[in-house]
Amino acid sequence: MIIVTRMDATIAMIDRIREHVEACGVRTYAVDQGHPGRVVIGCLGQSDGLCASAVRDLPGVEHLTEWRTPYRLASRAMARNGGCTVVRIGDGERAAAGGPELLVIAGPCAVEGRQMLRETAHAVRRAGAGALRGGAFKPRTSPYAFRGLEREALLLLAECRRDTGLPVVTEVLDPRQVEAVAEHADVLQVGARNMQNYPLLCEVGRVRRPVLLKRGMAATLTELLLAAEYVMTSGNPDVILCERGIRTFETDTRNTLDVAAIPVLRRETHLPVIVDPSHAAGRADLVTPLACAAVAAGADGFIVEVHPRPEAAWSDGEQSLSPHQFAELMTVVAPFAAAAGRRLSGSPDGAVREGQAA
Amino acid sequence: MIIVTRMDATIAMIDRIREHVEACGVRTYAVDQGHPGRVVIGCLGQSDGLCASAVRDLPGVEHLTEWRTPYRLASRAMARNGGCTVVRIGDGERAAAGGPELLVIAGPCAVEGRQMLRETAHAVRRAGAGALRGGAFKPRTSPYAFRGLEREALLLLAECRRDTGLPVVTEVLDPRQVEAVAEHADVLQVGARNMQNYPLLCEVGRVRRPVLLKRGMAATLTELLLAAEYVMTSGNPDVILCERGIRTFETDTRNTLDVAAIPVLRRETHLPVIVDPSHAAGRADLVTPLACAAVAAGADGFIVEVHPRPEAAWSDGEQSLSPHQFAELMTVVAPFAAAAGRRLSGSPDGAVREGQAA
Amino acid sequence: MIIVTRMDATIAMIDRIREHVEACGVRTYAVDQGHPGRVVIGCLGQSDGLCASAVRDLPGVEHLTEWRTPYRLASRAMARNGGCTVVRIGDGERAAAGGPELLVIAGPCAVEGRQMLRETAHAVRRAGAGALRGGAFKPRTSPYAFRGLEREALLLLAECRRDTGLPVVTEVLDPRQVEAVAEHADVLQVGARNMQNYPLLCEVGRVRRPVLLKRGMAATLTELLLAAEYVMTSGNPDVILCERGIRTFETDTRNTLDVAAIPVLRRETHLPVIVDPSHAAGRADLVTPLACAAVAAGADGFIVEVHPRPEAAWSDGEQSLSPHQFAELMTVVAPFAAAAGRRLSGSPDGAVREGQAA
Amino acid sequence: MIIVTRMDATIAMIDRIREHVEACGVRTYAVDQGHPGRVVIGCLGQSDGLCASAVRDLPGVEHLTEWRTPYRLASRAMARNGGCTVVRIGDGERAAAGGPELLVIAGPCAVEGRQMLRETAHAVRRAGAGALRGGAFKPRTSPYAFRGLEREALLLLAECRRDTGLPVVTEVLDPRQVEAVAEHADVLQVGARNMQNYPLLCEVGRVRRPVLLKRGMAATLTELLLAAEYVMTSGNPDVILCERGIRTFETDTRNTLDVAAIPVLRRETHLPVIVDPSHAAGRADLVTPLACAAVAAGADGFIVEVHPRPEAAWSDGEQSLSPHQFAELMTVVAPFAAAAGRRLSGSPDGAVREGQAA
Repeated sequence: MIIVTRMDATIAMIDRIREHVEACGVRTYAVDQGHPGRVVIGCLGQSDGLCASAVRDLPGVEHLTEWRTPYRLASRAMARNGGCTVVRIGDGERAAAGGPELLVIAGPCAVEGRQMLRETAHAVRRAGAGALRGGAFKPRTSPYAFRGLEREALLLLAECRRDTGLPVVTEVLDPRQVEAVAEHADVLQVGARNMQNYPLLCEVGRVRRPVLLKRGMAATLTELLLAAEYVMTSGNPDVILCERGIRTFETDTRNTLDVAAIPVLRRETHLPVIVDPSHAAGRADLVTPLACAAVAAGADGFIVEVHPRPEAAWSDGEQSLSPHQFAELMTVVAPFAAAAGRRLSGSPDGAVREGQAA
Repeated sequence: MIIVTRMDATIAMIDRIREHVEACGVRTYAVDQGHPGRVVIGCLGQSDGLCASAVRDLPGVEHLTEWRTPYRLASRAMARNGGCTVVRIGDGERAAAGGPELLVIAGPCAVEGRQMLRETAHAVRRAGAGALRGGAFKPRTSPYAFRGLEREALLLLAECRRDTGLPVVTEVLDPRQVEAVAEHADVLQVGARNMQNYPLLCEVGRVRRPVLLKRGMAATLTELLLAAEYVMTSGNPDVILCERGIRTFETDTRNTLDVAAIPVLRRETHLPVIVDPSHAAGRADLVTPLACAAVAAGADGFIVEVHPRPEAAWSDGEQSLSPHQFAELMTVVAPFAAAAGRRLSGSPDGAVREGQAA
Repeated sequence: MIIVTRMDATIAMIDRIREHVEACGVRTYAVDQGHPGRVVIGCLGQSDGLCASAVRDLPGVEHLTEWRTPYRLASRAMARNGGCTVVRIGDGERAAAGGPELLVIAGPCAVEGRQMLRETAHAVRRAGAGALRGGAFKPRTSPYAFRGLEREALLLLAECRRDTGLPVVTEVLDPRQVEAVAEHADVLQVGARNMQNYPLLCEVGRVRRPVLLKRGMAATLTELLLAAEYVMTSGNPDVILCERGIRTFETDTRNTLDVAAIPVLRRETHLPVIVDPSHAAGRADLVTPLACAAVAAGADGFIVEVHPRPEAAWSDGEQSLSPHQFAELMTVVAPFAAAAGRRLSGSPDGAVREGQAA
Repeated sequence: MIIVTRMDATIAMIDRIREHVEACGVRTYAVDQGHPGRVVIGCLGQSDGLCASAVRDLPGVEHLTEWRTPYRLASRAMARNGGCTVVRIGDGERAAAGGPELLVIAGPCAVEGRQMLRETAHAVRRAGAGALRGGAFKPRTSPYAFRGLEREALLLLAECRRDTGLPVVTEVLDPRQVEAVAEHADVLQVGARNMQNYPLLCEVGRVRRPVLLKRGMAATLTELLLAAEYVMTSGNPDVILCERGIRTFETDTRNTLDVAAIPVLRRETHLPVIVDPSHAAGRADLVTPLACAAVAAGADGFIVEVHPRPEAAWSDGEQSLSPHQFAELMTVVAPFAAAAGRRLSGSPDGAVREGQAA
């Protein structure tokens, strides 16, 4: 059940409504719809015990509606001010997903050492990236493959953030590591393989760090939004969704980028949506056209793999861009960002990038 | 085998090389690589009977290479001047696919009558479409569904062309109808269900009308290019490829637009590639973002369903745009076309559209 | 609309009901539900013009129901006597699909010549096959691949039938060839690529030969049944459905055998259902376990590729069994057939096979 | 690298070989190939540091080969005595997967209470099940759905084991719960959503309980075997693989049972393979034919959902069998098991079931 309050409802009335509902054993979640304006109170979980007519009679209630979607906090019905949620990233909130600037996250698949990470970080910052990615704990299909430098990589990422000012994004695989990773990372990534790892979703829902949630290889968009709902009902409202390609019969690409997911999600949720063209394509030569397509379809940003020497990368070399290729990508994407009414993120000196995009 | 001639090879030498190869029972196909310049001679079919060293010794031969792909005439190796093939459409060649202008084809799923067709045709022309689509023979999943006005629809399409100047695109289903359809239509569409209907491919390969070849629902890109090869080896070089979504587990959209198919095809073939966002999405509200994504990914145009009253359409109403929505789509797409270095097609008064796209 | 007549309805009453309905422009199709018993009259196509209450008042009408499925003649509601349709094959009706005997069709992918066909035919007959397969017109992904011996192959197949008594099954690709193929073949196969080739479906619907209709690579079961409906509404009730694997992300097999299609189709239609484990697997070593699985799931038979020397086959060698392997397959399948309450087909000297299966 | 020893190699020689290899930083794993006979020593992980010619010269070495597959401990090359691994279940080792008896696991989707669990357990035992399933911790797509009775359910399962003698199988979701679940359960199930949850795989690899590993919805068989490899390299050799349907475009069934996975896995691995027809079908009416198909294709057993009142089940009711339907399933499956040369498991009074299957 969703309760919409009257324009003239007071804070006390709203508190009273929520108390009434919670007394029936139903959690509530409230969002403003604007200033001045209505508040929407979402009733979470089973609301069997709630008597609709009793709720309707409470002072300040305008009307009740039913949830039309299985996800609730993630649904557009719960958008603040009817708009999109802007998820701010990093201590100084240097970067954000969902605002006028596109969020561009770039960096190596895995952190392989201090030198390569630093080199990449400076290069992507210069080219206009807004955040640095780098795998510390790597989910690998084979137990014999390199699984990341783990804690050492976290420290290197933190060091790079100090050097470059770029907030860092890294994947977390294990609910037992969430706290440790959250200490060093600005954004916790939940990978495609873990989209339905519920203990992990609940754990990242308990920390105060934005979560980058990747769509599973065979997940529907409803399942993706329900995974976001796990994070949100655990207390963390800052979820960034990421389309990264689904598994189909097509083998020319590693996965099939479902570009329609972007406008579908826009209609279904207020959460920001970015795209991972590197994993979708699995080939460096397709990353730029896919990033352009995503921006044109309305994405709030993208995350790409960049490595100083892709041919020598310990993992995902075929799909990694060199720093030079990444700079080219940014130049090619800029006019599409402008056509979409967006700016590229993270330009420390703003004007450059905006100038290009004009 | 592919034979590359020397810069100074004369026409007589090239003719001699081809005669030599054809005498071994192998068909040849030659394309210029530029002016002045080399000629590339493709040897089609099994070249087991050909002695490589004998060919290498012929005057004018620079070197031989092997085909790297199962398709040959469609392969990039056979691009004229190393570029893309421009397929010109219509008597006055008013429209084209593969040139600097995007080809925009718009019109109803099925021709339902004179009035609705005329109304749609004028509206899409005003909004900047370069060609008119309209189904005369409809492939329908159920034998009980409306299968098109058939011959009557062909005449109405021809009438609309006279009125509006727009070349017309219509589907052909049956090899026995190819000639009759080609009499009235400017482009013969081979639908997704018929992508591997080889008798039909051979038949449309024998007429002098461009072919719009749609990718099958579960076809790989190699299979699509081999289907184009059937048309081309039958004598018709004018094939326009069309990505229209593939069938996957995802049900939020009717099909999954494989936007990566565009840059993959760009690397594999010299043929132009357009996109059908209407069938990919199956929902009118997603057509515009998908068209924008396709243009950003490098498509040479798109084909969309437009109906004067989508809610009353006899087929595909949910995915049809109203004329007003189509005009909006054109406005939204224009800056993405400009960002891609392209113009929108068919603007009768050019300047307007180009002005928007600037 | 479906009209169910009373137990005591006379033939004259039934004729009167059908006349009434047909006078409203609606075709009818009637099947007996048993002796003595009801007749079910299916009203095909749009029955908007029919007044239900007028029909209900006609003498002999018991009640009316609505079609619950988009396919009608193929639907279980139209099963004769509530059972399965037995499709009889060949002049002496030596073989059948849907009866107590499983229909086993075996033979080469393509007819490559007299000797190999004869050798295969005798071998598969000895091992208990009930019909001979052999491609005369081959649908090939590439225009450069061998497309079959065409008319010559038809004559060789007819010759083999005279020699061995086995009815022959061969594919037809082109509506213009249907009559010629039907002259020589006992069963007309419509391949997976042509499942939605509607002119072809209509044409095979006009001849008096059973049709083996293969499921398309990405076709739903509803689409398969609607394809059968095209054949049936064109006048041919003898359709045998064939599950041959669908296209999925899995690459260990050429296609993914959808074994659940068998029981699903059993519930939806009265038509017999066989399986093609050769094309599903794409590997000879998996053909026998897949055939066993299909029989256990309730299939009415299977069609397998057998070649005297698979390693030298002009097409599909990897998935072809040698005659010896086919004989082994029959031995392994026999107890599963018995467990399913079925016999293997075509045993010239019956006892052997039945003995094994006991 | 794989080292095959000579027939006359002594234990001391074998130990010396392993020491040599391990001294180079490479883990080893040895299996007997028969009595008397060779030992196969698998070298795990990167063997770059190993000098092949030095190994070849060690006493007792017959020859070296390379791994042909990315999985190693799971590969057929490491089968004991060249056969299949039999995974024994429960304290008295009452049940097993991979032996002459099929392993039949039956029980409710979720444990809903003492009474329903007891009722189900007794019923499935009477019908011949060899183990009891029941979810304590349920992975649910929505955070608002019932997530299981958790610890209480574990105690109820343990109680039922005492009552019926049936070993119990239950899912574990969280690496932090593995120890607690292992205390009460005989088999730890890793569900489809967690097939690539590597911390969980490592954790279940550290306990002494067989692991039932379900294939992910979009996982290839190679990925499934690499997931098993995670468990095995962590120390637990007792992995039972489970095919439970993959996600495809087909919507008549919840998933598409990939029945070919059974014979493919048989060729690739020595681990036992069972099937989950309940989740594959998503409909109770298809469970029996799918179970029969799986047994005919060579499965080592199956796991099915049984609920005393499916229509009232808290989850998965549509795919649950009633106890009566489960007993029917066992009767229908029995002759297919016999045809496959197997017996049904767990029959307390043996003769009955064996009698039926004879």
